[in-house]
Amino acid sequence: MKQVPIIDVQTAARLVKDGDTLLQGGFGMTGNPVHLMHALAETGTGNLTFIGNNTGEAGLGGGRLLRNGQIRKMIGSFFTSNPDAVKAAQSGQVEYELLPQGTLAEAIRAGGAGIGGFYTPTSAGTALAEGCDVRIIDGVEQVFVKSIRGNVAFIRAWRADTAGNLQYRMTENNFNKAMATAADLVVAEVEEIVPVGAIAPEHVHTPGCFVDYLVQATLTPEDLGSSASVSTSKKVDEARMNMARRALAELRKGDVVNLGIGIPTLVADLITEDHGIILHTENGMLGVGPVPADGGGAMHYPVNAGKIPVTALKGSSYFDSADSFAMIRGGHIDVAIMGGLEVDEAANLANWAVPGKPLLGVGGAMDLAKGARRLVITMTHTNSDGSPKIVPQCTLPLTATGVVDVVITDLAVFGYPNGKLTLLELMPGATLEEVRAKTGAGFLIHQPSIVL
Amino acid sequence: MKQVPIIDVQTAARLVKDGDTLLQGGFGMTGNPVHLMHALAETGTGNLTFIGNNTGEAGLGGGRLLRNGQIRKMIGSFFTSNPDAVKAAQSGQVEYELLPQGTLAEAIRAGGAGIGGFYTPTSAGTALAEGCDVRIIDGVEQVFVKSIRGNVAFIRAWRADTAGNLQYRMTENNFNKAMATAADLVVAEVEEIVPVGAIAPEHVHTPGCFVDYLVQATLTPEDLGSSASVSTSKKVDEARMNMARRALAELRKGDVVNLGIGIPTLVADLITEDHGIILHTENGMLGVGPVPADGGGAMHYPVNAGKIPVTALKGSSYFDSADSFAMIRGGHIDVAIMGGLEVDEAANLANWAVPGKPLLGVGGAMDLAKGARRLVITMTHTNSDGSPKIVPQCTLPLTATGVVDVVITDLAVFGYPNGKLTLLELMPGATLEEVRAKTGAGFLIHQPSIVL
Repeated sequence: MKQVPIIDVQTAARLVKDGDTLLQGGFGMTGNPVHLMHALAETGTGNLTFIGNNTGEAGLGGGRLLRNGQIRKMIGSFFTSNPDAVKAAQSGQVEYELLPQGTLAEAIRAGGAGIGGFYTPTSAGTALAEGCDVRIIDGVEQVFVKSIRGNVAFIRAWRADTAGNLQYRMTENNFNKAMATAADLVVAEVEEIVPVGAIAPEHVHTPGCFVDYLVQATLTPEDLGSSASVSTSKKVDEARMNMARRALAELRKGDVVNLGIGIPTLVADLITEDHGIILHTENGMLGVGPVPADGGGAMHYPVNAGKIPVTALKGSSYFDSADSFAMIRGGHIDVAIMGGLEVDEAANLANWAVPGKPLLGVGGAMDLAKGARRLVITMTHTNSDGSPKIVPQCTLPLTATGVVDVVITDLAVFGYPNGKLTLLELMPGATLEEVRAKTGAGFLIHQPSIVL
Repeated sequence: MKQVPIIDVQTAARLVKDGDTLLQGGFGMTGNPVHLMHALAETGTGNLTFIGNNTGEAGLGGGRLLRNGQIRKMIGSFFTSNPDAVKAAQSGQVEYELLPQGTLAEAIRAGGAGIGGFYTPTSAGTALAEGCDVRIIDGVEQVFVKSIRGNVAFIRAWRADTAGNLQYRMTENNFNKAMATAADLVVAEVEEIVPVGAIAPEHVHTPGCFVDYLVQATLTPEDLGSSASVSTSKKVDEARMNMARRALAELRKGDVVNLGIGIPTLVADLITEDHGIILHTENGMLGVGPVPADGGGAMHYPVNAGKIPVTALKGSSYFDSADSFAMIRGGHIDVAIMGGLEVDEAANLANWAVPGKPLLGVGGAMDLAKGARRLVITMTHTNSDGSPKIVPQCTLPLTATGVVDVVITDLAVFGYPNGKLTLLELMPGATLEEVRAKTGAGFLIHQPSIVL
């Protein structure tokens, strides 16, 4: 068996050359090869194309390279989590390309798998598909995506053996597995290096053939900056809890459910074991349990897509981002519950681009909106200025077209029986007059059929 | 956590309906859901489209359905291993579609991942790409492949927990993991069902959300028929050993190497631990060791692509067929050594279609020929009738175009320095005159540069 060279972090950093395309593993700071990135930040290497879900966080991971001016272009799904990345993109200082999170993961996997490109339904009919080659396959509009490769991949795993076989810890896999396959040179920083044979062949996550160099680096909470201790305080009022309760009623025993951030997160707190609901988080976990009793440090627990530490229920499983979005896109998520900015008569959803803010963070929203079998939107009925969010036709950039099944607001529940926007229920305290006044779209009113 | 219903094998068999598309896991009989298949063979269900790498073996697995006349169409990569399948295809009794093994695995993965289709370089320029949409991506000719899904998938895993999480044993994963994602209804037959929580979340191969029903079924050597005891006798003569030795000299320490059947298999016997070679087998294993001392029963060892039991070296890993061919196609195999029927001046290879026999078995040959970084062909210099196998232009159906790096015959070693077919060496006992007489193609003669 080959021995993978173990090198120091400075030597590893010097493997990246001016002008290289660098793949950086991690979802935010979870599974981020932070020691490699910070050593690279100490070099003069620049003009980089940086590919990662997020450009690190402010001053951390890829964010440190960004602050140093080492990045020429960034490709990712969610720049919004790093204010420096937003500023760099808006000022034109750094070129950028935004992809849906699942499209990014799949494109990197494809690059590693020798696949030239693929067609995905994600982003069809949205601003991100503009100028793309689009084809109808089996009646579904699909967008062509070219595969992605890099010169160098910096990844993080938890354990390596001396032959380079890797195991990821909990939700630290995310983009690392695919990136390990998709670069000419792959450096893995790992917590621990064990003798060859110490990892059973059926427990290897990334086979050794993908790994060129190992760096041993011990992770500390300080390495992860602020994300290691996350505030879990939530703004909870009765109207929001009512929406969460109503959303819960949409779920059936055995459903695989993905919960977005905001009101949908409140649903998680209402789910007990008796509900038999299986929570999925798109960063790579099925069987998400409650937030740990001790509040958690992101280092010691899996994290959800909101980067909040969670627990793992019995029967849970971890997987990488490519597999996670394959699960979503392939129709294996029964219900997604998300927030909304606008929903319209044609069941279109806009929920990723806030008016007046740049289009810099889409994350997994497009994949989930399109891929989930049933899409439930929870949102306030109106904007803070009183303007309606249920409109004849969305004016904000779309997340997905024709996908909404149920809309739950503080005033009402709407659905699309026979494809027509229809008022199904009034929420506690709401009146039909109020709903009429505050809804921009035309809608039918559900008439329960009379059983004779 | 959901409880996956545990049903008996007869109930499971009745889930398949007339006219269904059935995905069957397994590589030959390894990881084949044989109990499910044999129960299905007891039903009157017919008119099936059967998708599996092989249509079982004669009278076993899918082969039993075939013998019963239950299959209308079969889609696979290697029908040749079942004489009944060959006969059914040739007689026109059963429709068939032949795909390269890696294309089949990727298409099923894509079906499960909600990807409409993809472009692969495998099969470009061959008979299997005729009539396909072809596109040049990054200068490489690529063939469009539509994704594949089924109504029902019958798969086999080794262990399940009651939430449906699956673990595969050794090389029994193969097509099972991808198929578990790509059907409306998935039934897993498993050796053992353990309580939820008994499988650690990081050791789950197939998350429970993909599995609809579990069937417990104990595997016996009888279930696998003849394949459980494989003869490992090989026709070995000095000329063949010389070719194997010369092929070994093409390998470098640390190389990841895939060995085809025939002469390439002999190379495996020459490799010692000191060589530091890592053997890959396309059915899903890296770190293949020697044939077990006891000869092995296929049930108790991993198998290689020739379905011969092998051992697992320290540092080995198992993975599914989609990942294995991703490894091949993505350029992660340093050297493939294969047999050849014809090689020509343009470095084209023909090695999958024997003259006068139907085009019914391609297996992984096209993927390996195209995907390996370096391709070494070992073959006799001439056919048994004395006609040359190194020809100006291949006349047999091509495996891949422009891919051959080295040809090793019983008479000579050829390469393609500067893209020109060139005689590099004479094998022991051969003369230039004999090589000239028995080579159909024109060739240059290598002149070692003189060091002054």
